[in-house]
Amino acid sequence: MRILILNGPNLNLLGTREPSVYGTRSFDDCLRELRVKHPSASIDHFQSNLEGELIDRIHSAPGNYDGIILNAGGYTHTSVAIADAVAAIPVPVVEVHLSNLARREPFRHTSLLTPVCRGAILGFGLESYELALLHFLLQS
Amino acid sequence: MRILILNGPNLNLLGTREPSVYGTRSFDDCLRELRVKHPSASIDHFQSNLEGELIDRIHSAPGNYDGIILNAGGYTHTSVAIADAVAAIPVPVVEVHLSNLARREPFRHTSLLTPVCRGAILGFGLESYELALLHFLLQS
Amino acid sequence: MRILILNGPNLNLLGTREPSVYGTRSFDDCLRELRVKHPSASIDHFQSNLEGELIDRIHSAPGNYDGIILNAGGYTHTSVAIADAVAAIPVPVVEVHLSNLARREPFRHTSLLTPVCRGAILGFGLESYELALLHFLLQS
Amino acid sequence: MRILILNGPNLNLLGTREPSVYGTRSFDDCLRELRVKHPSASIDHFQSNLEGELIDRIHSAPGNYDGIILNAGGYTHTSVAIADAVAAIPVPVVEVHLSNLARREPFRHTSLLTPVCRGAILGFGLESYELALLHFLLQS
Amino acid sequence: MRILILNGPNLNLLGTREPSVYGTRSFDDCLRELRVKHPSASIDHFQSNLEGELIDRIHSAPGNYDGIILNAGGYTHTSVAIADAVAAIPVPVVEVHLSNLARREPFRHTSLLTPVCRGAILGFGLESYELALLHFLLQS
Amino acid sequence: MRILILNGPNLNLLGTREPSVYGTRSFDDCLRELRVKHPSASIDHFQSNLEGELIDRIHSAPGNYDGIILNAGGYTHTSVAIADAVAAIPVPVVEVHLSNLARREPFRHTSLLTPVCRGAILGFGLESYELALLHFLLQS
Amino acid sequence: MRILILNGPNLNLLGTREPSVYGTRSFDDCLRELRVKHPSASIDHFQSNLEGELIDRIHSAPGNYDGIILNAGGYTHTSVAIADAVAAIPVPVVEVHLSNLARREPFRHTSLLTPVCRGAILGFGLESYELALLHFLLQS
Amino acid sequence: MRILILNGPNLNLLGTREPSVYGTRSFDDCLRELRVKHPSASIDHFQSNLEGELIDRIHSAPGNYDGIILNAGGYTHTSVAIADAVAAIPVPVVEVHLSNLARREPFRHTSLLTPVCRGAILGFGLESYELALLHFLLQS
Amino acid sequence: MRILILNGPNLNLLGTREPSVYGTRSFDDCLRELRVKHPSASIDHFQSNLEGELIDRIHSAPGNYDGIILNAGGYTHTSVAIADAVAAIPVPVVEVHLSNLARREPFRHTSLLTPVCRGAILGFGLESYELALLHFLLQS
Amino acid sequence: MRILILNGPNLNLLGTREPSVYGTRSFDDCLRELRVKHPSASIDHFQSNLEGELIDRIHSAPGNYDGIILNAGGYTHTSVAIADAVAAIPVPVVEVHLSNLARREPFRHTSLLTPVCRGAILGFGLESYELALLHFLLQS
Amino acid sequence: MRILILNGPNLNLLGTREPSVYGTRSFDDCLRELRVKHPSASIDHFQSNLEGELIDRIHSAPGNYDGIILNAGGYTHTSVAIADAVAAIPVPVVEVHLSNLARREPFRHTSLLTPVCRGAILGFGLESYELALLHFLLQS
Amino acid sequence: MRILILNGPNLNLLGTREPSVYGTRSFDDCLRELRVKHPSASIDHFQSNLEGELIDRIHSAPGNYDGIILNAGGYTHTSVAIADAVAAIPVPVVEVHLSNLARREPFRHTSLLTPVCRGAILGFGLESYELALLHFLLQS
Repeated sequence: MRILILNGPNLNLLGTREPSVYGTRSFDDCLRELRVKHPSASIDHFQSNLEGELIDRIHSAPGNYDGIILNAGGYTHTSVAIADAVAAIPVPVVEVHLSNLARREPFRHTSLLTPVCRGAILGFGLESYELALLHFLLQS
Repeated sequence: MRILILNGPNLNLLGTREPSVYGTRSFDDCLRELRVKHPSASIDHFQSNLEGELIDRIHSAPGNYDGIILNAGGYTHTSVAIADAVAAIPVPVVEVHLSNLARREPFRHTSLLTPVCRGAILGFGLESYELALLHFLLQS
Repeated sequence: MRILILNGPNLNLLGTREPSVYGTRSFDDCLRELRVKHPSASIDHFQSNLEGELIDRIHSAPGNYDGIILNAGGYTHTSVAIADAVAAIPVPVVEVHLSNLARREPFRHTSLLTPVCRGAILGFGLESYELALLHFLLQS
Repeated sequence: MRILILNGPNLNLLGTREPSVYGTRSFDDCLRELRVKHPSASIDHFQSNLEGELIDRIHSAPGNYDGIILNAGGYTHTSVAIADAVAAIPVPVVEVHLSNLARREPFRHTSLLTPVCRGAILGFGLESYELALLHFLLQS
Repeated sequence: MRILILNGPNLNLLGTREPSVYGTRSFDDCLRELRVKHPSASIDHFQSNLEGELIDRIHSAPGNYDGIILNAGGYTHTSVAIADAVAAIPVPVVEVHLSNLARREPFRHTSLLTPVCRGAILGFGLESYELALLHFLLQS
Repeated sequence: MRILILNGPNLNLLGTREPSVYGTRSFDDCLRELRVKHPSASIDHFQSNLEGELIDRIHSAPGNYDGIILNAGGYTHTSVAIADAVAAIPVPVVEVHLSNLARREPFRHTSLLTPVCRGAILGFGLESYELALLHFLLQS
Repeated sequence: MRILILNGPNLNLLGTREPSVYGTRSFDDCLRELRVKHPSASIDHFQSNLEGELIDRIHSAPGNYDGIILNAGGYTHTSVAIADAVAAIPVPVVEVHLSNLARREPFRHTSLLTPVCRGAILGFGLESYELALLHFLLQS
Repeated sequence: MRILILNGPNLNLLGTREPSVYGTRSFDDCLRELRVKHPSASIDHFQSNLEGELIDRIHSAPGNYDGIILNAGGYTHTSVAIADAVAAIPVPVVEVHLSNLARREPFRHTSLLTPVCRGAILGFGLESYELALLHFLLQS
Repeated sequence: MRILILNGPNLNLLGTREPSVYGTRSFDDCLRELRVKHPSASIDHFQSNLEGELIDRIHSAPGNYDGIILNAGGYTHTSVAIADAVAAIPVPVVEVHLSNLARREPFRHTSLLTPVCRGAILGFGLESYELALLHFLLQS
Repeated sequence: MRILILNGPNLNLLGTREPSVYGTRSFDDCLRELRVKHPSASIDHFQSNLEGELIDRIHSAPGNYDGIILNAGGYTHTSVAIADAVAAIPVPVVEVHLSNLARREPFRHTSLLTPVCRGAILGFGLESYELALLHFLLQS
Repeated sequence: MRILILNGPNLNLLGTREPSVYGTRSFDDCLRELRVKHPSASIDHFQSNLEGELIDRIHSAPGNYDGIILNAGGYTHTSVAIADAVAAIPVPVVEVHLSNLARREPFRHTSLLTPVCRGAILGFGLESYELALLHFLLQS
Repeated sequence: MRILILNGPNLNLLGTREPSVYGTRSFDDCLRELRVKHPSASIDHFQSNLEGELIDRIHSAPGNYDGIILNAGGYTHTSVAIADAVAAIPVPVVEVHLSNLARREPFRHTSLLTPVCRGAILGFGLESYELALLHFLLQS
C-alpha cells in the first residue's frame, strides 16, 4: 500500500507555529512514528506552499500511489484548481485537518475539496493523518 | 474503554433504506463485527428517532462512557438542543456520517454539531464508525 | 386502498385553535365525513406532537398502507429527519396543508418535505385532505 | 360550473417536449378526457406564450367563469403582472403544475402566483388539472 | 408640449379593481380632467398588458412626444427590456405610481426603471400623473 | 395566580452544566426560593428534552394556568411547532432566558418564539424567571 | 396653507457643494422663487445637520403646519428615529430628493422614510420641492 | 439605589403618539407612579431626541448612578455610538422596550445595544420599566 | 445549413441606440454582410420586442433550421419562459451578446439562457453573430 | 500647515475607557506630544458626541485648514451624513482608527467614510494620528 | 498575427481527464490542427498549474503577441491576481472555456476574468479555442 | 531596524501599468528614495507573482527582519494561505496599498490579511510604504 501525504501551505512550520494551537511536534516526528507503527504502508511525504506544485504532485499520483492523504491548509477554502486536480485522477483522496475547522473563522467552515474527496477527517490533531492511513489499510 | 454509539433518526432502516446509497448491511451486522475486531472496547448502541431521547442519552453518559460516537442523522443540521447537550457533558464526542455530506443537498453542508464535538469523520460508509472507535482506542 | 393520514404538531387542536383561521370543525368530523363519502378507501389517522413518533409511523407504513397523506404542521419547515423518513420508504406520500402557506410568514414558504413527496396540495382547508385522497383513488 | 383552464408558455408543446419528463399525452387528449369524466363542468381552454394575453384572459373572466385553473409555466416565477391580474378579479384561481417544482432548479421554488391564488396543486402530472377541477366541483 | 401617458398591465381595470386601494375613478375620467385643466399640453394615452407593446410605443416616441409619463405596473419590478427601451430613446421619461410602493410587498420596493428615468413620483394616487405633467409644463 | 414554568432541553442540567456560564444553583433551588418569596403564586414546573412533550404541556395549559414562563432552550431558535402551540392557546406566555443571547453565537440571536409571546426577559440568570413571575403578579 | 420645508444634513451647502451635481443655486434662491410663484402658501424653512433637531421640528409641526416637505439628506437611509417621528404626527409629509437616488450608490437606494410619508418625489433637482408644494396646493 | 431612566427619540410623545399602540399614559405619569411604589429607589429621568446627548448622559453616569434603564427608541437599531458608550462605562445598563419588537418591522428585530447591556426586557408596555427597576432593587 | 438569427427587445434600434456603445451599423447591414461572406449558410432573421413571439419562433424551429443564434436582449436575465422554450426543442441554440455583460450592471451578469444553450459568445459586438455562425459552419 | 483633528463619539473617554484595549493615555496627552514633536504643524482638536456637530465642523474647514484627521468612532459605520460632508468639501481628509477594526465585530468591518477620504490608517493606537499628520507634513 | 494560447491548471490532463466530459483529444492534437487550418496565425502555447507563472507570461506578452487566448481553468473563479495582470497589459485577451460553465457547480458561474477580457466564448469544447482564434484573424 | 518590503502580483509593473491610476514611478525609484531619506533602516525588497514564494519569504523573516511591509496585491482578497503565514510568525507585519481600495470594485473591499496584520495604511500611493516604514522607525 503506497500512500502519499500531501501537505499544503504553512504546514512546514508545524511544531513551531502557534504551539498552543498546533502542538510542539514537527510533522517529521509524526511521519517517523507513522512509518514505525504501520510498516505495511509505504508512505511518501511532500509539502509545498505553492498551489501549483501541489497540483503537479496530485497529477503524478496515478500509477505511483494507492491513496493520497491531503491537508491543503489555507488552499482548502479557496482552491478550485486543487479540487479539479483531485477530481481528475482515479486515486482516492482523503481530506484531513489538524484542527476542528467548524470552531474557527467562518471562512474556514467551507471546504472546496470535500466534495471531490472520498471522505474527510478533522479535529484530531496529527492523529487525523493516522486515521486516514488506517482507512487505506482497512481497505487493503 | 466504554463507548456509546448513538444513532439518530432513520438509521434503524440501514440495510433496507436506499441500498444503492447506504449499502445492504444493517447496523447490527456492523456492530457485531466491530465488537469482534475490537474486543478491548465495550460498545453500547442506542438508536432513536426522537431528538429528546438522544439528548437524554447524552446526559446520562458521564460516568458510564469514555466516549460517544454520534451520528445524529437529519438532526445534525437542525438541532441546537443536541449540540447544547454535547457541549454540556465532559465526555468526548466524535461525529460520524456514512455519506460525504458535502456532495449532497446544500442543507446537509452545515452541521450544528461539529463545533461542539472533538472531531468529525465523514464519507467512509459504516467504516466511519470504526475509524471513530479507533480514535478512542488510540487515546487509551 | 389503505391510506394513512398523518398529522403533525398542533393539529389535534383543530376546531378550537384560531377558529377564524382554521374553522370550527375538528379533524374527527372531517375524518368521519371522508370515510362516508369514500367507502372504497380504508383510512387510518395518527396525530402526534413528537417529531420522532411521526418518523416511527412513516417507517411502519410499508406493507400496511398504499399511500400517506401528510400534514407535518410546523415540522414541515424544520425537519430534515421527517424528510429523510419519507425518502426512505417506497410508499407514496402526498403533502397537504390547510392554509395557503405562501400568504403567511416567510419561514412557512419553504417546505423541506415537498422534494421527497409525490406532490403537494395546499390552501383548501380540510378539503386539502379530500383532494389528496382523491389522488390515491384516481390511481387505483 | 364554468371553468377556464389557462395554460402559459411552452405548454402547447405538451406530449412532444421532453416526454421522459412530461409524458407523451398532449393537453388536448387530457382536456377531452376531463370533459367526458366531468360533464357537469363546462370547461374552456386557452393557451398563450404571451404574458399580456394571459392577463387579458384573466381580466375577461368575471361574469364568464366560476373558476380558473392556472398553469402559468415559466411566468409563475417572474410575473408580477399576472399575479396582479389574479388579485384584481373576484373569480377564484387555483394554481397547478405538472411537475414537483421543489425537485427542480432553485428559481422554480418560488411562485409569485401562490399568494394570490386560493390554493395550489403540484406534482401530479396532468392529474393536477383534474384535482383542481374536483376542487371546484366539490364547492358547487 | 406633446405628452404620452403610458400605462402598463392591469391599469385598464382602474376604477373597478380593489376600489378600496385604487379608488373608484377610471383612468379615462382622470385623463379628461387633465386635458381640461392643462390645455397647453397635448396628451395621448396608451395602455397595454403586453410588455413588448409598451416597448414598441416607447420606441416610437422620439419625434412624436416631448415627454413620457410611464406607469409600467407590475413590469416596473421585472422588465429589463422596458428599462433598456427607456434608456435607448432621447425623450425624457417620468416614472409614476398610484400607491406608495414602499408600503407594499418587498418585491415592489425595487424598480428597474427608476435609474433610467429622469425622476419618479409615487404615492399620490391619480394625482401622481398630474404632478408628472406639471413637471413637463414647468420645463416648457 | 397559577403559573407554569416550562423548561426545555438541557435545563435539567442546571447547576452542573458549564457552571462558569450558568452558575452552580440547580433549578430546584431556584424554584423553592421563588415559592417562598412569592407565596401568592401557585407555581408548577415541568421540564422535558422532547419538543413534543413541551407542546403537549402548552396545549393543556388553558383552564389550568393563568400564565406560562417558557424557557425553551435550544428549541427557541428552531421550533416552529412550539411557536404554533403558543399561538394556539389563550394563556399568556412570557419568554425567559438565563443568558444574554445577543452575546452568543449568531444562531442564538433569533427566537422563533418571541413574536408569539407577550414579552421577553433575557440575561438576568435565574432572576429572569423571577422577573417574569413578577410580571404576572403585577397583573393580578 | 402653511408648509414647512425641512432640510437635513449638508443641504446648507447647496450651491457650493459639487456644483456639477447639485447646480449653483443656493436653497435660499429657490425658496425666494417658490414664495413669489406660490403666494397662497406660507412657507417656513428649517435646516439642521443634527438628526435630533430635525425630530424636534417634526414634533412641533402639528397645529403649526398643514404639510411638511422633507429632504432628510443622508439621514434618509439610516434614521429609524426620524421615520418614527414622521409616523407619530398627523401632519402629512412628502419626501423629496434633488437627485435620482436609484442612479447612485446602493446604500442610497433604500429610504427608511418613504413607508411613513404620503408619497415621494425624486430626481427633479430643486424642482422636486416645487412639485411637492404643488401637491399640497392641489389638495387645498 | 440611584437609577437613571434614559429615553431616546420620540418617547417624549408618549400618551399622544399612536395611542392604540402605545397607550394614553404619558411617561411622567408612569414616572410618578414608579417613585411612589418604589420609594427606596431614587429615580432620575432624561429624554432626548439627539443621539449625542444620550451619549453624554451615559458618560456622566459613573459615580452618579447605580444602574441605567435605557429605551433608546429608534437608535436601538442604528447606533453603534450609543452601544460603544454603554460598553465604556462600568454602570450596569438594562435595555427596555414598550412593544414586542419581534412582532414589528424586520429592521426592529436587531438591537445593537443588547450585547453590551446586562439584559433586556421587552413587550410589557410601561411595565417594562418597572421590571427593570425591580431587577436593580432585587440586586440591592 | 439553415440558421435562424433571433433578436429580442430593443435590438431593432441597433445603429441608432447609444451609438457610442453599440456602434452605428444597423443589424440589416450586418445581416447583408454575413450572407455575402458565408453563402453556404441560409440565414433567416426575426426580431420582436414580445417575449411570447420569440417563444413562438423557437417552437417553430424544429424541421426548419439547423441552428439558432439567439440574442434575447433584456429577456436574457428575466425569462424563464424563453429558457424553457430553448430546452424544449432539439435544435441547438448559441447565445450571443454584443457587449461584455460582465462589465455592466450586476443584473446583467446572470443569464437564464446559458444553461440551456450549447454555448455562449459575448463581447465582440456584431462579430459575435459571425462567430456563432462560424460555429455552425464548422459543425457541418 | 493647519490641521484639524476631529474626534467622534466616546473618544473623550480615552484613557479611562477599557484601558486594556485603548491604553491609559488621554487624547490631550497625545495632542501635547504631537504639537511638541511636529511644531511646523498648527493642530486644532475638536471632539463631539453629536453627529451633526461633527458635520458642522467639517463644513467650516475650507479656508481654515489644510487637512483633517478624522476618527469618527462609531459613526464610521453608520453615518451617510458625515460621508456626504467629507465629500462636499475640498479639504483632504485622512481617516484614522486606534484599533484594527478588522479584528473586531463584523459591523465594524465596513466604513462608510473610507471611499470619500484620501486614505485610511488603522491599528496603530494613538500613533495612527501621528502617521496621518506625517502624511500631511510629507505633502508640504 | 502572433497569438499566445495560455492554459491554466489541470488543462495538461486534457484527453485523459474525465473523457466523458472533456473528450479524448489532447491539447497538443488540437494545437497541431489549429496551426494547419490557420497558417496565417503564429500560435504559441503555454500551460502551467501555477497562478504566478501564468501572470508572468501575461506580463511578457506586450511586444511579443497580438492577442492572448486564455483558459485559466479553476483560477477563472478565484484569481484577482490574474485579472489584474490581464487589465495591466494592452494586448487583447479572449477568455475561453471548454464546457458550458453555467451548467456546472454554482462557484463556476462567476468569472473574475470576463470583465477585463475583450470577450468570452464558452461551451464549444476545443472548438472554443478555434473561435477565439477566428476572432483575432477577423480583426487582422 | 531591518525591514522587508514584500510586494505581490503585478507590482513589478509599477510605473508602466495604468499610469493614470498608479503613477509613472517604478518601485525601484521609490525604494532608492526611501533608503536615502531613512538611512537608519536597512530595507530589503522582494517581489513575486507566486503566492507560495511570498509565503516562503514570510516564513524566513523571523531572525532576519524586525518588520514586514506587505502589499499582497490581488492576493489580499483571496489568500487564506498568506494570512496563515503572517499569523504564524512573530515578526510584525503592516499591510499597505497604493490605492484607496474602498473606492474600487466590491471584491477589493475585503482584505483577508488585515485581521492578522498589526495595522493597515491605504490610499497614499507609494507614500503608503513610507508611512509604514515610519511606523517601524517610531517604534525603535
